[in-house]
Amino acid sequence: MDLELIEQLVVKNDKKIIFLIMDGLGGLPQEGGTKTELETAATPNLDHLAAGGICGLLDPVGYGITPGSGPAHFALFGYDPLKYNVGRGLLSAAGLDFPLSPDDLYMRANFATLDKFGHIADRRAGRLDTEKNKLLCIKLKANVHLQKAKEVFFVTEKEHRALVVLRGGNLSEQISETDPQKTGQPPLEAQALIPAAENTAAAVRELSDKIRDVLSQEEKANIMLLRGYARYRTFPSMAGRFGLNPLAVASYPMYKGIARLLGMTLPQETTTIEEEIQALSSNWRSFDFFFVHVKATDSRGEDGNFAEKVKAIEKVDSLLPEICALNPDVLVVTGDHSTPAAMAGHSFHPVPVLLSAKTCRPDGAVSFGESACLTGGLGRMPMKYLMGVALAHAGKLQKFGA
Amino acid sequence: MDLELIEQLVVKNDKKIIFLIMDGLGGLPQEGGTKTELETAATPNLDHLAAGGICGLLDPVGYGITPGSGPAHFALFGYDPLKYNVGRGLLSAAGLDFPLSPDDLYMRANFATLDKFGHIADRRAGRLDTEKNKLLCIKLKANVHLQKAKEVFFVTEKEHRALVVLRGGNLSEQISETDPQKTGQPPLEAQALIPAAENTAAAVRELSDKIRDVLSQEEKANIMLLRGYARYRTFPSMAGRFGLNPLAVASYPMYKGIARLLGMTLPQETTTIEEEIQALSSNWRSFDFFFVHVKATDSRGEDGNFAEKVKAIEKVDSLLPEICALNPDVLVVTGDHSTPAAMAGHSFHPVPVLLSAKTCRPDGAVSFGESACLTGGLGRMPMKYLMGVALAHAGKLQKFGA
Repeated sequence: MDLELIEQLVVKNDKKIIFLIMDGLGGLPQEGGTKTELETAATPNLDHLAAGGICGLLDPVGYGITPGSGPAHFALFGYDPLKYNVGRGLLSAAGLDFPLSPDDLYMRANFATLDKFGHIADRRAGRLDTEKNKLLCIKLKANVHLQKAKEVFFVTEKEHRALVVLRGGNLSEQISETDPQKTGQPPLEAQALIPAAENTAAAVRELSDKIRDVLSQEEKANIMLLRGYARYRTFPSMAGRFGLNPLAVASYPMYKGIARLLGMTLPQETTTIEEEIQALSSNWRSFDFFFVHVKATDSRGEDGNFAEKVKAIEKVDSLLPEICALNPDVLVVTGDHSTPAAMAGHSFHPVPVLLSAKTCRPDGAVSFGESACLTGGLGRMPMKYLMGVALAHAGKLQKFGA
Repeated sequence: MDLELIEQLVVKNDKKIIFLIMDGLGGLPQEGGTKTELETAATPNLDHLAAGGICGLLDPVGYGITPGSGPAHFALFGYDPLKYNVGRGLLSAAGLDFPLSPDDLYMRANFATLDKFGHIADRRAGRLDTEKNKLLCIKLKANVHLQKAKEVFFVTEKEHRALVVLRGGNLSEQISETDPQKTGQPPLEAQALIPAAENTAAAVRELSDKIRDVLSQEEKANIMLLRGYARYRTFPSMAGRFGLNPLAVASYPMYKGIARLLGMTLPQETTTIEEEIQALSSNWRSFDFFFVHVKATDSRGEDGNFAEKVKAIEKVDSLLPEICALNPDVLVVTGDHSTPAAMAGHSFHPVPVLLSAKTCRPDGAVSFGESACLTGGLGRMPMKYLMGVALAHAGKLQKFGA
C-alpha cells in the first residue's frame, strides 16, 4: 500500500493526536539478563495504557536496517524513510533555524583534536564547552575567506557540534566526508563522488585547510571534521498531506529541524521533559497533532548505561498522567529506533509501540515491553504506516471505495 | 525495502555466519495428529538454541506460493526469488561443474520407460542405477548427431537424472517441456512459446527423436523426458553484494549448482551429514559464511514418510553440538521450503526459522517448532530478508542515514 492512499482519504476534524517519542526506546537485556530496559523499568502508567490500548513492533526502515535518527523520524511521521532520506547538515540547519537558501550546502561539523603527528586524538575535542564553541565560531566567521565559495557560516550547535554552511556557486552534496569516524588517523580529504562535484570538493578542501589555519593555536579544538552534507530541499508538509496542524515539542536541534522541515510549529525553548510537558499543555488548544520528543532514553542507551536508561523511562512514566490528563483522542508512545545499552548505539531491532484510543480492539499485551508487544494487535509493521493507523483511530480517514 | 539497500550498507568484519538448511523442514501433522514432524522430533539442542535465540516463520516466495528448490534457495541467500528465478537445467549444469558457455541451452533430463502403446509407464525408469545411466550417456553422446544444433552433451547426475546440453545456434529457453509429469500418457512434443524459439523447439524435437532411436533397444530407459530449460546467465556474487567469503557444504548437485552460481567455494566431496560437518570444521578458518545443506529431511517428506522425516531431523539435532562448538557469531537454522510428509511434496506453508546470536532479543519461543515460531520475535517475514537480519546480527551492516 502506498502512503499516497492515506493522503487521499484524509478528512479534518478536531480530534487530537499525541506522538510521545522516547528516542532509542527499544532495547536488549543486559548480559545474563532476560529483560530489556523497558521491561526492567517500573512503568505502571505505560502498562495501564498498554492494557487498554493496542501494542506492536515497528520496523523503522526494514529488516536488519539500523536507522539514523533522520530516517527513523521521517518514518514516524508517515514519510517514506528511503524517499526522504537527507544529510544531517540540513536537519541541523533547520533545527538551528538557520535561514535556508537554495544556494546552500549544509554540513555537520565536529570540533576535534589533532595531535602533533597529525592524527585525530579526540573526535569531540573533549566535548568542548558550548561557550568556547561559540567563541571559535565567531573567530572562524571573521577569519575564514574562501576563493572557491561566495560565503561561509559557522553556527554553534552544542558542545563540540556545529553547523557549517557554504553558500553560492553550484554546490553538490556528492562529496566524501572528512571524518574517518576513528581516532589515531589523519582526517580525510574531501573528494568528489561524481564529476560534477569537483568544484565543491575543492571548496571543502580549501575550507578544511583554512579552518585549520585559524584554529592552529587552539589546544583542544584545533580542527573541524565535516560530514552529513546536504543541499537545500523542501518537504511536503504534514498539513498538506494529513490535514494536521502540528506542534513539535523537542529540545534538541536535530529533532526541531525535522519538525520545521515538515511544517510543524515550534513553541518556546525547552530543555527538560517537565518543560516539554508544560509546553504541550500550554499549546493544547491551538493544535491537533503533538510531537513530544524525549532524548534521554537514547543518550543513556548510547552511553551503554542500562540502569540510567531504565531511570529515564521511569521518569517519562511518572509524568505520563499529566499528558493523559489532556485527554488526547489518540496517544501513541514509541521510539524512533532501538538503542540497546548492551550495544551502546542504534540497532536494527524493531521498536515497541503502544496506541491508546477508544477504538482499540483488545489484544494480549497487558504491559508495555518488547515481549508483550510481540502479542500485540498491531503485529510487526513498517513504521511509516503508523501515522495512518493514528489518523484512522482519530477518525481522520474516510472509507476507501464504495 | 529493496535488497539493494542492504548491499549499500555492508561492511566487512571477521564475524562468522552459518546457515544450516534442513531442506523441506516445514511440515504438517499426520492425519489425526496435532504435531508436525519438527514438533514430534526430540530436538533438545535445537530447542536450547531456540530458547536463547529468536524464532519466526519465513515465506520463501509469497503467500500461497509453493516454491521449487531453486527460488527457495535464492531467497535464503538474499536474492529476490522472482528476479533470479532460473530453469533447473542451469542449476544442474553448475552443480555438475559443467563448463558453462553463453551458447548453451541446459535441460534437466529423466530417463523414463515408454510402454508398447507409446505411453509413459515410469517417469524415472525404475530409479535407474547410476552406473547404467553413465553407460547410456556415453552411448547417447556417441550416437546422437543433430542437424539443428552444433553439439549436444549428456552428463549423468544420479539414478535416472541427467543433464542434457545443446550448444550453438541461437537457442531459446522459451519452449515447452516434454515431460507431462504423469504416467499413462505419451511424452509431449516441444513447442515454441514465442516465435523466436521455433528453431530451438525443432532442435529439441529432433533431439528427443534421436534419443529415442538410440535407446530403442533398452528395456527400462528407452526415452528421455526434458524440462527445466535454461540459457546461460550470470549472477551477482555474495562476495560482491554482501562482502562475504562463502563456503557451501552440500552433497547434491543442484544445491552445489546454486552455490557455484552465487560464487560460493565448494570443498571436498561429501555424501553424509557427518562428512558435511567434517568439511565445515576443516574449512572453518578460511571463510566467513557457511551454507550447510541437509537433503534427507526433504527426501523423507517427498516419500510421504512422517516417521523417517522425524528421524532425519533428530539426526541433525544430535550433530548440532559439533556445529555449535565452532562458536559461530550467527547460527541460522531453517529450511528452504516446507515438505510435509502428509503432502509428499513441497508446500506453500511458511518455514520455521531460528537465529542464534548475542544480539537476540528474548521472545516467546522456547522450543523449535512451527507453533512455537508463531510466537517468535522475527514474526512472519519474507525469506529474502533473512540474509539482512543475519548480516545485522553479525555487525556487518552500517547505520542508514544520519
